[in-house]
Amino acid sequence: MSPSRSPVGLDHRLDVVAIGNAIVDVLVQAEDRFLDDHGLSKGAMALVDEDQAQRLYGSLGAGLETSGGSAANTVAGIAQLGGRAGFIGRVRDDQLGAIFSHDIRAVGARYDTPPATAGASTARCLILVTPDAQRTMCTYLGASVGLDPADLDLEMVARARVLYLEGYLWDSEAAKRAFIAAAEVARAQGGEVALSLSDAFCVERHRESFLELVDGHVDLLFANEVEITALYRVNSFAEAVEQVRGRCRVAALTRSESGSLVLGGGDSHLIEPVTLGPLVDTTGAGDLYAAGFLHAYTRGLDLQTCGRLGSLCAGQVVTQLGPRSQVDLRELARRQLGLAWEPLSSSQAP
Amino acid sequence: MSPSRSPVGLDHRLDVVAIGNAIVDVLVQAEDRFLDDHGLSKGAMALVDEDQAQRLYGSLGAGLETSGGSAANTVAGIAQLGGRAGFIGRVRDDQLGAIFSHDIRAVGARYDTPPATAGASTARCLILVTPDAQRTMCTYLGASVGLDPADLDLEMVARARVLYLEGYLWDSEAAKRAFIAAAEVARAQGGEVALSLSDAFCVERHRESFLELVDGHVDLLFANEVEITALYRVNSFAEAVEQVRGRCRVAALTRSESGSLVLGGGDSHLIEPVTLGPLVDTTGAGDLYAAGFLHAYTRGLDLQTCGRLGSLCAGQVVTQLGPRSQVDLRELARRQLGLAWEPLSSSQAP
Repeated sequence: MSPSRSPVGLDHRLDVVAIGNAIVDVLVQAEDRFLDDHGLSKGAMALVDEDQAQRLYGSLGAGLETSGGSAANTVAGIAQLGGRAGFIGRVRDDQLGAIFSHDIRAVGARYDTPPATAGASTARCLILVTPDAQRTMCTYLGASVGLDPADLDLEMVARARVLYLEGYLWDSEAAKRAFIAAAEVARAQGGEVALSLSDAFCVERHRESFLELVDGHVDLLFANEVEITALYRVNSFAEAVEQVRGRCRVAALTRSESGSLVLGGGDSHLIEPVTLGPLVDTTGAGDLYAAGFLHAYTRGLDLQTCGRLGSLCAGQVVTQLGPRSQVDLRELARRQLGLAWEPLSSSQAP
Repeated sequence: MSPSRSPVGLDHRLDVVAIGNAIVDVLVQAEDRFLDDHGLSKGAMALVDEDQAQRLYGSLGAGLETSGGSAANTVAGIAQLGGRAGFIGRVRDDQLGAIFSHDIRAVGARYDTPPATAGASTARCLILVTPDAQRTMCTYLGASVGLDPADLDLEMVARARVLYLEGYLWDSEAAKRAFIAAAEVARAQGGEVALSLSDAFCVERHRESFLELVDGHVDLLFANEVEITALYRVNSFAEAVEQVRGRCRVAALTRSESGSLVLGGGDSHLIEPVTLGPLVDTTGAGDLYAAGFLHAYTRGLDLQTCGRLGSLCAGQVVTQLGPRSQVDLRELARRQLGLAWEPLSSSQAP
């Protein structure tokens, strides 16, 4: 199925505009025992306050800092693939905020949210990478929870073919309101709305809200196996698939080393995982899957190809430390899948 | 030769105390053309002011931030090997300063220099990694040039078996004075003084001063081929070796893929390079060579073994991005060279 979309072909459109938490990651190698000692659930994201973040950081080893944030990673991936992408999310006017802002613009994404000039510092996520390459996250949301409807660049939202939301935003009342306002604007302009469920604990916190969204307001849903079974409170992936089928236009359900299943147009597409080298760090795997998927989707490619490009991008990012690809994703897509896009002309550039 | 040293065996001694610039690195992949376009000399370190640093950063791709600083990298390596090491250098009380302070303490090094509460921000080094894995550096010295004799923890300096200096400090008049004051204290307590020449351009800027130091005040000299030939204004490595021989107790001269030559006790020791995997990023190679060398040296091992441990640590750090080792160096030394040290007892810990 080639997804139908409304006013395509307009040069001033952006392929994907995402709203998310603007976060700088601190990647630290840690032993499993550290997770146990600190009551951390492997693979999950826990919210911490600034004091807890400082205490944890103080007991961790040396880190590597890199821009992160789930939806921001997706936007960076789309820009690296050659797509026109924009990001909305809030940093503070501090050094980490400057790093975040630089990095997302450096890959060619549009990012204009004004930094906060007072209040909490830029959000940080302590990412503990265990020897099995799994990542466990402790996030201090800082300035990113201050995102509210007034921060929204509605002109940019209106240009979005796909407006992409990370479920993590639901942890902030103001950010959630900002997204709902944005979704209305995007849809009024013929755009589609995509949601990533982000994390199983996040789903637990906001199940009712997510269920309502998926039924009425979301065109494309991204979730992994744990998240989708948590959403429908079922015990198996198969049951979750039956629950979600038909509730939104497209559902892309990822299953780590088992690949992914894409539901859409009445069909199911089983997508093989891609292995490009030893597993180093799973940080960003879901984000980059969404990037590949959405990039192919906004180019009008069939769902099978969307899933395969998602798998390829996820397969690349897990071979390196950190959630932003250090290789040329466009070249990778050309070499591995024979996919090629024209470079953006200057009139098309965001 | 097993180097003779003065009052060893005192539990309160530190193996190595280093004075250097306290820097956070921003690692960015760049093409050779970028170096040409910006007049940057490959492999070298250029000093930039804050405006130049901002302009360069703005035109570079997304980066990876990690603690750096030449002598600080050496101290981190020694601590990772199980040695007792301390660092003196100045950050500002900002986010990058907090990252630097955390990371050097997290590996077990002692670091107590009070952060500046006003003035320039923490030093940053833009490190451009080209496809050949070479690194080219643009350093904004920021708060680190504010180091002056008043910042010195003379109690820590007095405990040093080896006081280690990076040549880069000579770019700041105050820091240079601080080092000379520290060297006098260390020697008065029976410690030795080590100097790294840091960079060929740095040697050009301070040749007379370095020549005088090497002749009269330095026990151990670290330099690479380009630096040592620049110091003596000669055209070949062989000529430089003849010049430096006998001028200080030990000279460790590194030659990248040709290994290193260690001069000392009237002998020359040729050390083979160590290859542990594909070359990724040469940042920190010289710093980690010095770490391995000094760790073996302060354990009273012969110069051949000092050089071999230096080669091993350098060989490891070039297989990864960034100048601080992401693997357990003590385990690596045990596995590759059969070297083992007792863990520090709590009474020995710094």
